[in-house]
Amino acid sequence: MNRREFLLASAFAAAGLTSSSVPVFAKQGRSRDKLGVALVGLGYYSTDLLAPALQLTKNCYLAGIVTGSPEKIPQWQKKYSIPDKNVYTYANFDGIANNSAIDVVYVVLPPSLHRDFVVRAANAGKHVFCEKPMAMTVAECEAMIAAAAANKVRLAIGYRCQHDPNIQAYRAIGRNRPFGAPVLLSSVAGFYDPRSKNWRQIKALGGGSVRDMGIYAIQAARMATGEEPMLVLAQSSTTRPAIYKDVDETTQFLLEFPSGARASCMSSFGVEMNYLNVNYEKGWLRMNPHSQYKGNKGDLSDGRLIDFSITNQQARQMDDDCAAIMTQGRLIAPGEEGLRDVRVVEAIYRSAERQAVVPI
Amino acid sequence: MNRREFLLASAFAAAGLTSSSVPVFAKQGRSRDKLGVALVGLGYYSTDLLAPALQLTKNCYLAGIVTGSPEKIPQWQKKYSIPDKNVYTYANFDGIANNSAIDVVYVVLPPSLHRDFVVRAANAGKHVFCEKPMAMTVAECEAMIAAAAANKVRLAIGYRCQHDPNIQAYRAIGRNRPFGAPVLLSSVAGFYDPRSKNWRQIKALGGGSVRDMGIYAIQAARMATGEEPMLVLAQSSTTRPAIYKDVDETTQFLLEFPSGARASCMSSFGVEMNYLNVNYEKGWLRMNPHSQYKGNKGDLSDGRLIDFSITNQQARQMDDDCAAIMTQGRLIAPGEEGLRDVRVVEAIYRSAERQAVVPI
Repeated sequence: MNRREFLLASAFAAAGLTSSSVPVFAKQGRSRDKLGVALVGLGYYSTDLLAPALQLTKNCYLAGIVTGSPEKIPQWQKKYSIPDKNVYTYANFDGIANNSAIDVVYVVLPPSLHRDFVVRAANAGKHVFCEKPMAMTVAECEAMIAAAAANKVRLAIGYRCQHDPNIQAYRAIGRNRPFGAPVLLSSVAGFYDPRSKNWRQIKALGGGSVRDMGIYAIQAARMATGEEPMLVLAQSSTTRPAIYKDVDETTQFLLEFPSGARASCMSSFGVEMNYLNVNYEKGWLRMNPHSQYKGNKGDLSDGRLIDFSITNQQARQMDDDCAAIMTQGRLIAPGEEGLRDVRVVEAIYRSAERQAVVPI
Repeated sequence: MNRREFLLASAFAAAGLTSSSVPVFAKQGRSRDKLGVALVGLGYYSTDLLAPALQLTKNCYLAGIVTGSPEKIPQWQKKYSIPDKNVYTYANFDGIANNSAIDVVYVVLPPSLHRDFVVRAANAGKHVFCEKPMAMTVAECEAMIAAAAANKVRLAIGYRCQHDPNIQAYRAIGRNRPFGAPVLLSSVAGFYDPRSKNWRQIKALGGGSVRDMGIYAIQAARMATGEEPMLVLAQSSTTRPAIYKDVDETTQFLLEFPSGARASCMSSFGVEMNYLNVNYEKGWLRMNPHSQYKGNKGDLSDGRLIDFSITNQQARQMDDDCAAIMTQGRLIAPGEEGLRDVRVVEAIYRSAERQAVVPI
């Protein structure tokens, strides 16, 4: 164990996380300071968020790319000094199994492609990061979790928020209940999407506002209550019917939790909105915003502020997840966590379709 | 016309309101500076809000009381110098017709009694102020409006908020549409009611959170959009089933407006909450709080603040309404406005009962 690994293992032990005494590096049995990450899908999120974040990470670095757009390859190779041997297309992707430079495959494709690429990456013996939403259905999520388990690799969902200390602070309120049980909350997430042909507007690719922005509203409700919703009543709508024919532009959904707590939530591609207001029995919390890339902050009824600084969410997320892999520690957002949200998403769409309350 | 009447008439003319050239004082044809108001029902709202406000009003004063609790009479008479001839019980209330000192009867009873007392007051030839909610049903509201019309008296709903310049400021956004059409909004109003036997918890008296606090959420949505909702989907719940057996403690309701705008609303006796967040096509407005007795304030996406000072909402309300009576001007919240909200309340309860979308 080198000094960095020792420090990591100690930190995780101090945090009460499971960790082996000796960090283990993937299947190849190599030992080094940083894990090599390959990004699959070189769209906006990889280009503008993940690749820059991988210049800030301490436990991993950008080692490779996998793309269906060959014209993007030269620029990426030049900018990030990526050797030819670490560049893949979707066709030869499975060959990554033999590349010891790649420890983690990060799937950043439209949702309908997550299951296939996550399973292929796991079968190639690589740890996997997968963007949100985890997949199209609960069944797909289960297949992905099973593939990771069968191959003895880790599967983490790219839930950057759960690595943000501001989100962790309000999540602790839901877990520790200093204000008693949750009673009523509102949680909304949306942005104005001027596009009409992004995957968000295409059903076959996994579009729809609930799948994309709704996940944030769902997570906020789950984390602020510390509970899993049992029932949902949902209604979808659009003010741009020419664009939103097959997927929802906006969905309003009401969640019921085991404690009796209720949530009024909204997701949208039509408006910019991002806040969480929670009433507990003996106090409240407000976050505004609650799930942006930066600046998440809020306050509590006892006067405490939630306003922690964080340099880069995605860098923190990947560092946390790579530390968990290296120390065999607990992942903050494993596949099982992604599945919980997809289960709610499925129920929301079912409710909106049936115009009825449905169990989750 | 005395100087004060002249100033009032001029002010209303400047404000573009209909006004006769000569103010008219009720049926008695008297002419004086202030209208005499009799409060019907001496509970908390009359005692702690309206009677003190009537010490601040310029266009009216506390002239009489009508009560079913004779033990309250001596204290009220002493505190506000109310002569014996201006004190009524519910039994002899109709005799108020012959009392020229009373110009306006303000009905501050539980909602189930509004129709009866408003009709009796109108039949006695008095102008009428009526607390919110206007009545239990649309049919009752229509009977009250008809009684006022038949007796040629004015009927104003005690919508203090509509007289608050902060509310008027955001209402102007809904009317004038500087940010384009409304798209999506959230509007909530609630307080924690520790009581179990107030009228709010008793169905026969007009209890239920939608009738009481829901009115504020409904009004906020109506005013911020400048539209009347067409459809509603609602769900009621409680975390105190021992108390909330017959009426709703909390209701979540989704409204659809003619423009396609949607609202997610909540009303509750379980939690303290009061905010309005509206997204328009090209901007937004936030009010927090939007309907408290004082301190309503907010901001707009163009950087403007809504933060006007107002000494006393109820005094402003009664002064505005008495000015409208004296100048035969437009009432800010006539019976027709109260009816609009009761129509929505009725539909919300119907939707919650049927668990289905219902037309309004």
